[in-house]
Amino acid sequence: MTEQHEPPTPGVSGKALGKDIPQATVSRLATYLRVLTALSDEGVAIVSSEELAVAAGVGSAKLRKDLSFLGPNGVRGVGYDVAKLCTRIEGVLGLSEGHRVILVGAGHLGRALARYGGFARRGFTMVGIFDHDPQVIGTSVGELIVRDIRDLAASVGELEPTMAVLAVPDGAAQQVCDALVAAGVHGILSFSALALTTPPSVEVRRVDLGVELQMLSFEWTRTAAAREDLPAAPPSWVAAVSTMAAVATPIRRVAEPMAPNSKGTVVAQ
Amino acid sequence: MTEQHEPPTPGVSGKALGKDIPQATVSRLATYLRVLTALSDEGVAIVSSEELAVAAGVGSAKLRKDLSFLGPNGVRGVGYDVAKLCTRIEGVLGLSEGHRVILVGAGHLGRALARYGGFARRGFTMVGIFDHDPQVIGTSVGELIVRDIRDLAASVGELEPTMAVLAVPDGAAQQVCDALVAAGVHGILSFSALALTTPPSVEVRRVDLGVELQMLSFEWTRTAAAREDLPAAPPSWVAAVSTMAAVATPIRRVAEPMAPNSKGTVVAQ
Repeated sequence: MTEQHEPPTPGVSGKALGKDIPQATVSRLATYLRVLTALSDEGVAIVSSEELAVAAGVGSAKLRKDLSFLGPNGVRGVGYDVAKLCTRIEGVLGLSEGHRVILVGAGHLGRALARYGGFARRGFTMVGIFDHDPQVIGTSVGELIVRDIRDLAASVGELEPTMAVLAVPDGAAQQVCDALVAAGVHGILSFSALALTTPPSVEVRRVDLGVELQMLSFEWTRTAAAREDLPAAPPSWVAAVSTMAAVATPIRRVAEPMAPNSKGTVVAQ
Repeated sequence: MTEQHEPPTPGVSGKALGKDIPQATVSRLATYLRVLTALSDEGVAIVSSEELAVAAGVGSAKLRKDLSFLGPNGVRGVGYDVAKLCTRIEGVLGLSEGHRVILVGAGHLGRALARYGGFARRGFTMVGIFDHDPQVIGTSVGELIVRDIRDLAASVGELEPTMAVLAVPDGAAQQVCDALVAAGVHGILSFSALALTTPPSVEVRRVDLGVELQMLSFEWTRTAAAREDLPAAPPSWVAAVSTMAAVATPIRRVAEPMAPNSKGTVVAQ
């Protein structure tokens, strides 16, 4: 699961910077950017909204709605200029200058993330990696040498990162987060399950891989009964979940009209 | 970013299994479960909605709304029975029986994921790991030995996984996905940036770590102007983004009333 730091209090922030694009649109903009970059690499100069929608796996109406947040785009009957649309999305996502990223926690996950090609391809350059373990400090991860976390403040001054990735045990996450904030890092991608406390000027995104599997489990359970190969005698979890569902009314789609006997209100998340 | 496979066509699936709980609520249920499990480990038997809300980092009204999807919970003035609420959430998320998980792709990320403690703590047991590289097959990852991907079908029959984690290069992702589906795996957590094509009975969740950093970049940019330590001469991306924002109207909060001169409709995502 990903979770976002609460937005800063109204009136404090720079309001004009694309603040109110819905988060789901932002994530789809990132997907469009990936597709557009691939098209550009193949030498494609113009793409229709239908082609782009299919390649991104969304409906073309949703695509046009998403791109409308960027202002006027494309020419009716012609399509979108691939290079211009890339530049525009990169601008809104704050990617135009690229990002310098440091990583704290050189364990299995941290070392894998430090070498993860998907970061570099998106313009995120890993410039430093830190740990507290004397046996790990000084070892190499790809082209980087693991630095001592105690040198974080001085290293941030030298490396000038715009973001940090946090891959430390839960017990150390808040302390390391505080050190990053004190050193002047304002964007943190955390792989800790814990919610981190930071000042409003610092943005934190949390990727909880365990929750991702739990959400997959929910969807997997939801469609279990539909599968042709459901065993003749359903496993015990089916009964357990059916019991749950029986007491779990009202459960309905947000977009559906409310039934008169509904016990609760349904809100868009 | 995480992305979800489109739900199966209406009328095909088992409708009663908690189908229509909003995804944001599902992710928060997973968070409540983590907090409740920690409370249970500490011997806490009863928790108030306020205490649970604070520990989970959400408002208590939202917490009560989320839990209302589970049916009647708690006793007014007393609170929630920690153990019962755990069981109930586990039931809805399909976690009651735990999950057996296989992992395909024993590269850096795959090896890190195979040892990731956050999976086991949530009831996901890693039972097998696969790769196609002869130099990797037979090596150990934690307590597992990497198996040959060509033995996938037979191994699935033996290991009986309910889910698979996909950590292979983008170019191999669809092919491996097809093999998993053919072998009878119905839940896939994919770390590939590509959208995967699967039958409606198969659930796919996609974790694109590059998009996570891009979404962090968006938020980071959004709050940049608010920071006290903004340099006297803003870096060039500020100008670029301000230009973007100037052409990007209407950009507004979903919950805000529409201005009369709004050019587009705003939909809840």
